[in-house]
Amino acid sequence: MNLVLIAIALGALAVVYGFVTSRQVLGSSAGNEKMQEIAGAIQEGAKAYLNRQYSTIGMVGVVVAVIVGVFLGPVSAVGFLIGAILSGVAGYIGMNISVRSNVRTAAAAQTGLQQGLTLAFRAGAITGMLVAGLALLAIAVFFYVLIGPMGEDPASREVIDALVALAFGASLISIFARLGGGIFTKAADVGADLVGKVEAGIPEDDPRNPAVIADNVGDNVGDCAGMAADLFETYVVTVGATMVLTALLLTGAGDLLLPLMALPLLIGGACIVTSIIGTYFVRLGGGTNVMGAMYKGFLVTAVLSVPLIWFVMTFALGDLSATIGGPENLGNVDPGAPLAEEGTSAIAPFTGWALFGCAVIGLLLTGIIIWITEYYTGTGFRPVRSIAKASETGHGTNVIQGLAISLESTALPTLAIVAAIIGTYQLAGLMGIAYAATSMLALAGMVVALDAYGPVTDNAGGIAEMAGLDDSVREKTDLLDAVGNTTKAVTKGYAIGSAGLAALVLFAAYTTDLAEFFPNADVDFSLENPYVIVGLLLGALLPYLFGAMGMTAVGRAAGDVVKDVRAQFKEKPGIMDYSEKPDYARTVDLVTKAAIREMIVPSMLPVLAPVVVYFAIFLIAGQENAFAALGALLLGVIVGGLFVALSMTAGGGAWDNAKKYIEDGNHGGKGSEAHKAAVTGDTVGDPYKDTAGPAVNPMIKITNIVALLLLAALAGGAG
Amino acid sequence: MNLVLIAIALGALAVVYGFVTSRQVLGSSAGNEKMQEIAGAIQEGAKAYLNRQYSTIGMVGVVVAVIVGVFLGPVSAVGFLIGAILSGVAGYIGMNISVRSNVRTAAAAQTGLQQGLTLAFRAGAITGMLVAGLALLAIAVFFYVLIGPMGEDPASREVIDALVALAFGASLISIFARLGGGIFTKAADVGADLVGKVEAGIPEDDPRNPAVIADNVGDNVGDCAGMAADLFETYVVTVGATMVLTALLLTGAGDLLLPLMALPLLIGGACIVTSIIGTYFVRLGGGTNVMGAMYKGFLVTAVLSVPLIWFVMTFALGDLSATIGGPENLGNVDPGAPLAEEGTSAIAPFTGWALFGCAVIGLLLTGIIIWITEYYTGTGFRPVRSIAKASETGHGTNVIQGLAISLESTALPTLAIVAAIIGTYQLAGLMGIAYAATSMLALAGMVVALDAYGPVTDNAGGIAEMAGLDDSVREKTDLLDAVGNTTKAVTKGYAIGSAGLAALVLFAAYTTDLAEFFPNADVDFSLENPYVIVGLLLGALLPYLFGAMGMTAVGRAAGDVVKDVRAQFKEKPGIMDYSEKPDYARTVDLVTKAAIREMIVPSMLPVLAPVVVYFAIFLIAGQENAFAALGALLLGVIVGGLFVALSMTAGGGAWDNAKKYIEDGNHGGKGSEAHKAAVTGDTVGDPYKDTAGPAVNPMIKITNIVALLLLAALAGGAG
Repeated sequence: MNLVLIAIALGALAVVYGFVTSRQVLGSSAGNEKMQEIAGAIQEGAKAYLNRQYSTIGMVGVVVAVIVGVFLGPVSAVGFLIGAILSGVAGYIGMNISVRSNVRTAAAAQTGLQQGLTLAFRAGAITGMLVAGLALLAIAVFFYVLIGPMGEDPASREVIDALVALAFGASLISIFARLGGGIFTKAADVGADLVGKVEAGIPEDDPRNPAVIADNVGDNVGDCAGMAADLFETYVVTVGATMVLTALLLTGAGDLLLPLMALPLLIGGACIVTSIIGTYFVRLGGGTNVMGAMYKGFLVTAVLSVPLIWFVMTFALGDLSATIGGPENLGNVDPGAPLAEEGTSAIAPFTGWALFGCAVIGLLLTGIIIWITEYYTGTGFRPVRSIAKASETGHGTNVIQGLAISLESTALPTLAIVAAIIGTYQLAGLMGIAYAATSMLALAGMVVALDAYGPVTDNAGGIAEMAGLDDSVREKTDLLDAVGNTTKAVTKGYAIGSAGLAALVLFAAYTTDLAEFFPNADVDFSLENPYVIVGLLLGALLPYLFGAMGMTAVGRAAGDVVKDVRAQFKEKPGIMDYSEKPDYARTVDLVTKAAIREMIVPSMLPVLAPVVVYFAIFLIAGQENAFAALGALLLGVIVGGLFVALSMTAGGGAWDNAKKYIEDGNHGGKGSEAHKAAVTGDTVGDPYKDTAGPAVNPMIKITNIVALLLLAALAGGAG
Repeated sequence: MNLVLIAIALGALAVVYGFVTSRQVLGSSAGNEKMQEIAGAIQEGAKAYLNRQYSTIGMVGVVVAVIVGVFLGPVSAVGFLIGAILSGVAGYIGMNISVRSNVRTAAAAQTGLQQGLTLAFRAGAITGMLVAGLALLAIAVFFYVLIGPMGEDPASREVIDALVALAFGASLISIFARLGGGIFTKAADVGADLVGKVEAGIPEDDPRNPAVIADNVGDNVGDCAGMAADLFETYVVTVGATMVLTALLLTGAGDLLLPLMALPLLIGGACIVTSIIGTYFVRLGGGTNVMGAMYKGFLVTAVLSVPLIWFVMTFALGDLSATIGGPENLGNVDPGAPLAEEGTSAIAPFTGWALFGCAVIGLLLTGIIIWITEYYTGTGFRPVRSIAKASETGHGTNVIQGLAISLESTALPTLAIVAAIIGTYQLAGLMGIAYAATSMLALAGMVVALDAYGPVTDNAGGIAEMAGLDDSVREKTDLLDAVGNTTKAVTKGYAIGSAGLAALVLFAAYTTDLAEFFPNADVDFSLENPYVIVGLLLGALLPYLFGAMGMTAVGRAAGDVVKDVRAQFKEKPGIMDYSEKPDYARTVDLVTKAAIREMIVPSMLPVLAPVVVYFAIFLIAGQENAFAALGALLLGVIVGGLFVALSMTAGGGAWDNAKKYIEDGNHGGKGSEAHKAAVTGDTVGDPYKDTAGPAVNPMIKITNIVALLLLAALAGGAG
């Protein structure tokens, strides 16, 4: 119990950091009146959108909460609501900080690059710490209340179901937020570019473009609020799944069970401390290497995390050399259960040292994925440069090369994930994989900080442009923003990579649950069972269909923006010579409606698919095959989704930076034919990297969690 | 034995049809001198390329044949060589007919649309029948010699290994041919378009473009020779795998074994007859509905195949109501072998009627896939029109919508394939899946005819343009060519769909082989084994990596073409006013070298991957996990590859036809901004649909076959 309280205290520390730092950030200069006016319009639009988005999601949430309550009992329904509400809060806070820091970053950049960097990064760090802190608090407090005041047994079905329901709440809200925000931001971005840059020939962020405010609003509701909700979800699901798996697998751990269940929370807490320390190391040190400054911060966090994780593990478990798993002290596990097979058993004995090793592998994997993402999306390496070079021969070759890079970019992360799976499994079986995923996510505070920094600097540049600030300011914000594409891609690669591990943990929870709920069902998960193949194929189809829906939604909504902007140029001919002001709010309102309309159907896909597949196969081939197909569906989603998400997010980032690389004066620079081709590639990459790709991450998790809940519901609820 | 002889006779019938019809085609007018000169240049280029391609492949082939001989014995090496050589012959003949029919089609189109259609379709039918006939002959004659003169037992290891080696020969050559041809055709096409249409502003097929002959050569070596080798491979692998599976699973079939092994050959023979009949029904009937004429021919073939397959099955098996499978008459199957598990057993009893039902499902699936492909790539439906409409707002939205459609287009074929898997498995277990795949491939003669027709009309249009024929001729060839994109997409969807089924059959062969070779290995193919997950992930990665390599290769080779064409325009300034002639041969030679250079590495990927994965996992986690990971790799390739291939081929076809739809006068017509955007989409779709996408099909098969051969080699060869 004390261990959980420590985790709660560390979660609270993150929240305190957030409040203190936001005081500092909000206390700095908000710039001149013109800047504040523009920032005000962005704030207003972002709030209006999020209010509408969350009230729509709220209705879905209430319906789902009732369903959860009916099938799994009131405690699970409360868990669902906590997850859902805090996911929304994480997004809301992220947006709120972001829309206030953008103008302050623009103002600070007037003083110097370091000042701008500090302010923007602090803003990102607030969001990062609040996401990690709230996520940790959500699980830790809920867990504490369940096992303390409510007196539940930590490994009881009530607690397990409630934790899964908490994760479900977080996931369901975050897929809406990720997708709705993603559609908003890219519809506005693509629409604004198409009419502004291409048709009217005005530069990006030009105040004459009626879609310019919507574009800036999009950065906040998509790249910031949507991302924050997504990472909140990833954190809750991963840490929650590790706790659930502990309860399910280590049923014979005796006195060690509670410390083992609390350990993921403690690891999360420890990394909040190291993340906070790391934020203070993000400094330029004289030069202009913004990415280097970021890396310094991340490296400090990651390196400090190693001893601190060792410390909390020793603190919780006592002697790390003692054997934890193994049938001898896990006597009451049914030896016939699928996970106890000889040689591949998840509960083969392992030591605390092995778990520690797995946590370190998770930290390493995070670093490796960041490095790979930097390679594929940074302007200094072959991939981005090859796209830039291909732009010389036109739009077509730019897109071909971009697609080739996006396909290729899946290889190294997959190999790294595969190596991590093998390594952790060799060390500590399935628990090892879970610990690697947990330590990856423990770094979320720092990683989100890197990401949330992006939309702030992007907005700052827009405000500098629209407010007519000195060109030197825009140059500085551009320098700050240049790494934004990479940091944004990093978070997505990180989220999807961790999702790969988390999905395996969830699948293990599924099979263990199955063995517990339906002990007589002889479910054949072998690849030789054709219903397993059917499940794999249908699962792999989901991210494709989901991606198609997301891309189409952006195309359709962007088309609406184009029409509105054209209409405004026609209705108010004075816009081009600044004698009339465009109606920004009208465009924001239009994109809001479109994004909300478009987010519903694709978001329901992962919720309904497991249910439909289960019942369809049940009718055709009986319950055992239905369970097999459903389990295979879960793995199909991750096998298919990993590649779709990795290729889309890295490819999109590479396209964006290829354009930036050309704008830096290469291959003819701005205005050249190569630049036009690169703008096309960037446009194509937009919905790839900011709408469809990142939303695959919560999609994978929802499919898995719905399957877990379906099992519980089929078994007759928590009672 | 007599049954095999009948199959051989029917295979010979196809060859006879080919010779007779080619006499007719070659006997028609070859047009005026100018036309013949152009056609001569194309012929020369195509021959030069294929000679060089096959001599390069030949060297690889000899090395591999020696390896096969050393590990599996001389009979298998001979099988490999037969498969390899006949695959090459199929490609060579296809190209030869195609380069002679193009000019004759142009000449016939001077008389009328029906005349042009008849000639071009006959040319396609020759290739189609020769592919199906040679494939059938290759297996049937080899099988006959093995079990007759050489006196081998039909179900002996020698025969099984030899059939697998035959399939390997066909697959290995065809991946080179598909990829090399695909790189050639698209490098020339993209390169020619980029400099010609975009930079110099001259129309497609303009004789002033130095790359124009290379472009036309590409149609023949890629879309015709490459495709023919690919379908030859698909046929040999599918029919061969069905025979191998029969020998492996129905070991207790007694007197029925030989008829059952000969039955796939007879089904192939029966459909050759119906395909030949079908070709005579491809008639316009007054209107200009070219696609309708094609469908008439296909429908006649498919419908007639139902009674004829019933007839050959009754002829071979006697009473269709008698039980074939089932443990009772399969006494010597080890009941502990994985496939004999209760409830999911592949050898649960089934009747001849059930097998017949599965064959009909295969025919139906072919029809459904054709219909779906038509929907996604035809100009009359939503997908293509949505891309055309998105072109109005620019290059970016065209590509976004095209990518969305390409992702979406995987859904219906996957559902159809899943339904076919479930239906056939319910009827007759794994043998049912194998029979559906066999009856799909039995229609190859007709399907290849539809496809091979495409490059002929494409070339005919080019020749009409370059020879300065009357515009009405070009109009007619355009009308004929308009359906070419759809028929080409149809074959690819068909090939990859059948590959989905064939891969399951090959996987079953893998597990059965494994049980036979390593009876003591306790291989856990369950999804709960992390090495299975590792295998699935690595397998799914292969098509991505392969696709990336293919796309990059096209981009690089196209870049070379662009540079050469620019150089020629500079060296010979008289080209533009027709006072100088471009050096066509130089460009052809350059593309030839580039394509051959680029095809090697990606083609080796599926050959080496299974071997590397096996030994890597062996070293880390022992042999049983290595077998599990290798098996999962095979399924990962198909789960990943199916979606990559389907999305690329349908998406590419849709992009191409969206351009055609605009050129027909919609959304502003030729020369409009929408048209320019559509040209970009078409360029992007080119390597998608003609290089990377279709080559995934042989890639999937090679991975599977290499795994089978690896098992045999590990077990110490055929001895």
